[in-house]
Order: sequence, then C-alpha cells, then structure tokens
Amino acid sequence: MSTTRNVAIIGVGLIGGSIGLALHKRGLAECVTGFGRRQESLEKALAVGAIDRATTDPKDALQEADLVIVATPVASVVEDILRADQLAPRASWITDVGSTKGEICQATDKSLKGRPNRFVGSHPLAGDHRTGPENARPDLFEGRTVVITPPPATNTNTIQLACEFWASLGAVVRSMDPAEHDRALAATSHLPHLVASALASVTPEEYLPLAATGWGDTTRIAASDPDLWVQIFAQNSNSVIEQLDRLIDRLNQLRGALDSGSTESLRNTLQRAKEIRNALGN
Amino acid sequence: MSTTRNVAIIGVGLIGGSIGLALHKRGLAECVTGFGRRQESLEKALAVGAIDRATTDPKDALQEADLVIVATPVASVVEDILRADQLAPRASWITDVGSTKGEICQATDKSLKGRPNRFVGSHPLAGDHRTGPENARPDLFEGRTVVITPPPATNTNTIQLACEFWASLGAVVRSMDPAEHDRALAATSHLPHLVASALASVTPEEYLPLAATGWGDTTRIAASDPDLWVQIFAQNSNSVIEQLDRLIDRLNQLRGALDSGSTESLRNTLQRAKEIRNALGN
Repeated sequence: MSTTRNVAIIGVGLIGGSIGLALHKRGLAECVTGFGRRQESLEKALAVGAIDRATTDPKDALQEADLVIVATPVASVVEDILRADQLAPRASWITDVGSTKGEICQATDKSLKGRPNRFVGSHPLAGDHRTGPENARPDLFEGRTVVITPPPATNTNTIQLACEFWASLGAVVRSMDPAEHDRALAATSHLPHLVASALASVTPEEYLPLAATGWGDTTRIAASDPDLWVQIFAQNSNSVIEQLDRLIDRLNQLRGALDSGSTESLRNTLQRAKEIRNALGN
Repeated sequence: MSTTRNVAIIGVGLIGGSIGLALHKRGLAECVTGFGRRQESLEKALAVGAIDRATTDPKDALQEADLVIVATPVASVVEDILRADQLAPRASWITDVGSTKGEICQATDKSLKGRPNRFVGSHPLAGDHRTGPENARPDLFEGRTVVITPPPATNTNTIQLACEFWASLGAVVRSMDPAEHDRALAATSHLPHLVASALASVTPEEYLPLAATGWGDTTRIAASDPDLWVQIFAQNSNSVIEQLDRLIDRLNQLRGALDSGSTESLRNTLQRAKEIRNALGN
C-alpha cells in the first residue's frame, strides 16, 4: 500500500507489535500509535520500536487514525471495533487479527449495518507460542497467509485496501466466508492446540527427562497463553468439537489396532498421515 | 573412549550413519564397517563418509569387530544381536539403538544366559523424521540423552564401556530398567507419534493451505517412516495403550468443557499443560 499517515494499533502484543515493526521496517506509516490498557506492554512496544507513541486514552489513539488495527484477544475484539467506529474519522477503515471470525464478523456486521465498508475482518496465519511485544518480529507476516473475511456487501475498494495492507507486509492474502474460515481453522489450528495441551497435560512429570524432539514438537504450542486460547475455543466450540470427535474416533480405531495387533490397519493410518504431513512440507 | 580398532555398524540408516560420522569426526575408530542388506544404503553411507567399508556378508562384517552396534528396525534387532554374538570375536561387546528395550533385552538375556556382559541395550533419544544415511549428522548425539538398559548381572566393566562409548559421542548417559524405559517412552515418544499421525490423518486436505506453524509442529513426526513405527508400537503396545487411554480420557474431559462452556476447567488444563511444556524448554 502507499504510506498511511496514522495507524492506530489497539493491543500491542505479539501480532500488534509485529505489525508495528513491519510498518516501520517497510516505511509504510508516518506515525504508529499503540493503544492498550497495560502501561508495561506499551512501554515494551515503544522500546522495541513497534510504535512511535503510546496512549491509554482511546480518543487520543483513534481520533486521527486513518487505519485502525484491533489486535486484542478475541473476546475483546468486537467491543474494540465498535469503539474505534465511534472515535475514528469517518474516512478511516478498521480491521482485526482475531483467530476466529464467525462471531466477530456477525456482531460487527450487525452493529455497522448500512456501513459495511467500515470493517474487514482479518486473520494472519502467523504467530508464536511466545507472546508479548518483546517477541514481535518485523518479518512475522512474510510469506504467510492472511485470510480476510469481508462481509458480502463490502465494496471492492475496501477489500482492495485490506488486500494491499497485508500484501504490503509481505503476506499472501486469501478471502473467505467467516463461518468457513472457522470450520477450517478448527481443523488446522484450534484442534492442534487442544491436542498439544492434552498431550502435555497427561505426560507424567517424572518422565519428562526422557522427552526428546518428538514430544517437544508435538507439544510446542501447549506453551501458548491459556487466556487467549480459552477465548478462541469459546468462540468456535461447535467446529472444534466436530473436529475433536473425528480425532477421538481415529484414536479409538488406533487403540483397537494396537490391542488386536492389526499391523496393517495401523500401518495404513501412519502412511496416510505421512502423505498428508508431507503435503505441507517442513 | 579410547580408540576402538574395528567398529561394525549393522544397519546404516539415520542412527547407524550418524554413529559412523560421529566416530570419524572424533577420531574414535580405526575402521568402521557398515553391514546391511540394501546395497543402496551402504553406498550412500560410504558416500557421506559414515563408514570406511561396506559389506553384505555378515561374517566379513563381524569377524574382526571389537564393537558391534545393531542399528536395524526394532523387529530385526534380536536376530541381528544373536548373529553378532555367533560371528564376532569373544572379547568384543554388542549394543543396539532400538526405541524399545523390554522385548529386545528379555530375548537377548535369555539367549546369552551366562554371558550377560556380551550385550548392553541402548536407546539414543535422538532422531529425526527424515530417515536414511543421507540425513545422518555427526552431531546427532551431542547433548542428547542415551538410555542404557544393562541386564542386572552385567559387570561394571561392560556398563562402563557402554557409558564411555555414548559419552564419547557427546551424549548424556542414563541407566534404566528395560521395562521402565518402555513405560516412560510410551508417554514421551510413542504416544506423541501416534497422536501426531492421528491428527494429520483426520485433517481435511482441502484445509491444508490454512495450516500454519501450530499444525506443522504438532504433526511433524507424522512424517516418520510407518514401517519403523509399526514395529515400535507392536513391541510396546501395552504401555502405549495405557498412555493412550489417559489421553482419550483427557480429550473427552476437554470435549465436555467445550460443550458446556466450562471456561475454568478448560483454562486449568491449558495452564497445567503450559507448565509441563515450559519445564522442557524450547
């Protein structure tokens, strides 16, 4: 995108901070303002150069913003979007970075009825189990997919702005229906998080010294922030349950194969899994 | 350890090849002989410098060996140890690198009754989902744990040799009872493999373009060789089933929490998992 004068980032954690760093690195904004409730996070974001100025006053953060990015935990996103709608200039547009899109887009569409071009939902498929602006990276979005979920009535100009914004940070942009996004992410992100946590939680601690790279890889995302993930699961519980049931069924099948010594059945599942895993690459 | 004249490596895959590379890099053997059935693997192992000479004749491989390392898939290990016992000089000793130890040590102890110092079981907790000598690395064991599982009657001299051997490759050595090893590894290695494969196998392929680092980490070891893992599961099915049942119970608990909106219960499991995961480090 061309340079935006004022960008307001609501919530300067890992994602918000990384957006600020990327904007600075690429010279895409004249001034990046960070807004948050926690002074500590704002100071860290200033210290790493993610934002130019920090404020805990929403009016101060929003009244001159040309673009507002809501990067707060998903349970706060709708409220933060609606506040931005009230306080930001009429000509500006708003996006978010929430890991769920169904509830957020539905609530926002309802409240912004008649002004569908004010907000376009986004979800950058980039992140890390390490949170906070101290872990922010300017290259976090490079080569990553960002899903945008514009409401049906959004005009092409606003979709274009959202596409250009994420592409300008190095991302590959893909547009999806919010509900379809949530069904897909239940399988590719939310279920893996739940499984990694379940696996870590049942590992007897006395055996941990015998954990190697396999356990480490499989449970890595269990180190994520529980508060963020409880909110994500709550917003997508139906789709997550649907995927979880498929996994539990598969685990019970595998249990049966182990119990009966059905080598061939076990081997078929391992082979199928290998093919699907290899399709992604490393 | 001091330099060993002749080391025979039975099976030159990732682990066997990496042992050869490490011995060479550290100047610990005068001659490393690779034995295998597949000419192609032997040629690759020669090409990467893992072995000095290759043979498909067991007598040629073993008759002058001072140390024999059996690095074949676990279903072949006992047979390969007993052949080494027949063909290698009386003064030499034998170890293996199998991921399971109970069945291997029990069968070996029985056959070598009266000569408990001939064989000490080993399991280096190092590996990769990429197999074959072309992926071997001289530093594969550096800083890694190697579990040795000597039979109760092994004299301290043989245990000492096994400890020195693995320590000389940079590993940290730990001694355990074979059955206890298998119970622990069911939790820290075998269950994670089964879960990673189950998760990859139920992921709808049309959603794969939306898989990011979380899915990638959690399923990485699903890319491992199905044939090797079917053998490992078969040798440790009781302990794996025991751990799998604990995981399925936990997943059902989480399903209940998602279904009823019990945020607190969900959060407690995620928090507990994070603590256990953080105990390991990255």
